Amino acid sequence: MAELTRLSLNQITTNRLNLREAIEACQRHEIPAIGVWRNKIEEFGLKESAKILRESGLKVSSLCRGGFFSAPAREERQNLIADNLKAIDEATEIGTDVLVLVCGGLNSCSIADARKMIADGIAEIAPYAKQNNIKLGIEPLHPMFAADRSIICSLGEANNLAEKFDETVGVIADVFHLWFDAKIYQEIERAGKNILGFHVSDWQVPLPDILLGRSMMGDGVIELEKLRSAVESAGYYGLIEVEIFNQQIWDTESDEILDLMKTRFLETC
Amino acid sequence: MAELTRLSLNQITTNRLNLREAIEACQRHEIPAIGVWRNKIEEFGLKESAKILRESGLKVSSLCRGGFFSAPAREERQNLIADNLKAIDEATEIGTDVLVLVCGGLNSCSIADARKMIADGIAEIAPYAKQNNIKLGIEPLHPMFAADRSIICSLGEANNLAEKFDETVGVIADVFHLWFDAKIYQEIERAGKNILGFHVSDWQVPLPDILLGRSMMGDGVIELEKLRSAVESAGYYGLIEVEIFNQQIWDTESDEILDLMKTRFLETC
Repeated sequence: MAELTRLSLNQITTNRLNLREAIEACQRHEIPAIGVWRNKIEEFGLKESAKILRESGLKVSSLCRGGFFSAPAREERQNLIADNLKAIDEATEIGTDVLVLVCGGLNSCSIADARKMIADGIAEIAPYAKQNNIKLGIEPLHPMFAADRSIICSLGEANNLAEKFDETVGVIADVFHLWFDAKIYQEIERAGKNILGFHVSDWQVPLPDILLGRSMMGDGVIELEKLRSAVESAGYYGLIEVEIFNQQIWDTESDEILDLMKTRFLETC
Repeated sequence: MAELTRLSLNQITTNRLNLREAIEACQRHEIPAIGVWRNKIEEFGLKESAKILRESGLKVSSLCRGGFFSAPAREERQNLIADNLKAIDEATEIGTDVLVLVCGGLNSCSIADARKMIADGIAEIAPYAKQNNIKLGIEPLHPMFAADRSIICSLGEANNLAEKFDETVGVIADVFHLWFDAKIYQEIERAGKNILGFHVSDWQVPLPDILLGRSMMGDGVIELEKLRSAVESAGYYGLIEVEIFNQQIWDTESDEILDLMKTRFLETC
């Protein structure tokens, strides 16, 4: 079973807490790490956010998120690149070594063009990431987000992309996005040392929502332990982020959620 | 471009019409074919449904649907098989040669077990289908339906399954379920003469709903003409069903929907 030393709270799970509150909640519950969102950093500013994270002693498993490379106009694409370079700076500042990439949907482009813009975008930011010792984690999303969030929607595609680059570019395996894929175990094995993060939640039936459809581990059908074992066999023994977008969880008192999260993490992952 | 001689109204698109009304609507709009649902047959009974279909002169592109093979208890699985054999009889009676299979979700089984039950279920009904000159069309569904409707959720998996059998078992390519797949064109080519049906609708952003999330062709991002050309290159020149689950469309007057459907079919497919 997974150990609590590997647990990381992805901030979206406690979306109504600001960064300081989320850090304090982790400390109260002895959760050793946190996955940070850029919009949460903005609330305090980068310097202050970096300071409170440093002082907390928490590990920072990742920064969410860069990406969204696809756009019809060159100028818009250049702005998106600039924002990704800024995200790399932020990752450095807050003390993580992984920037999660949600690569982007179609955004009025053809599927083939969007895929090419994504590959080109990663190629454009990878040297700066490498120079700053930041790794770029391509997170394939569930195909129900292919149109509007990430046309990279299988681990196979993410592996294809990551393999174009050196060790600066890897993949993030989030069980919610990948659990049903008939090739998931072979693609996890193929990803190997390119795995930069492992995210857990669950797929409840019926699904409560599209964007806010993720559930607490144990409340759904995902074969969590089998997937966790697979990423370990592939070589990933790093932090495991719990990343849950769910209105009901957001509406519940955070201490209650974190208690449940720890219990379920130990029972199911 | 596609021609109206290939257009078939899948009955779900005009869900509030009964079989007789749907047939009359097809005749009014000179739509030459219909895809029939089992629950719509039940309203009139099989004999009467077969009679009014025969007298209409419409082609029947398929019967929706058999499948749902996965269940933890042997007895339940046997009941599901019996229902599939009944569906084959119904297909024969109403004058179609294709029974669509929505293979089934997890239904409290592990992913591996569910996949095995599906393969075993198809193997159990295929001889009876062959004997009755009915083809079984495995329709892979979008992965967002993997848990509760079909763990067969890519054309690649459907092809793997179909290839275990002779020409009695083939695949149905529905663009809504498949459009985002990076391997879709190679899997369509691979499916070749195993393609038993082609279904169109569209993926609107944002998606209006999960189950009722399909839109009229032209209102979304699916590259319809490219996909239609691909199934033709693979050898499929048969009927094209318009299959739209969408509350707003169901709430609209059916003649208005069929006018729009014909226009969009010609413009976008």
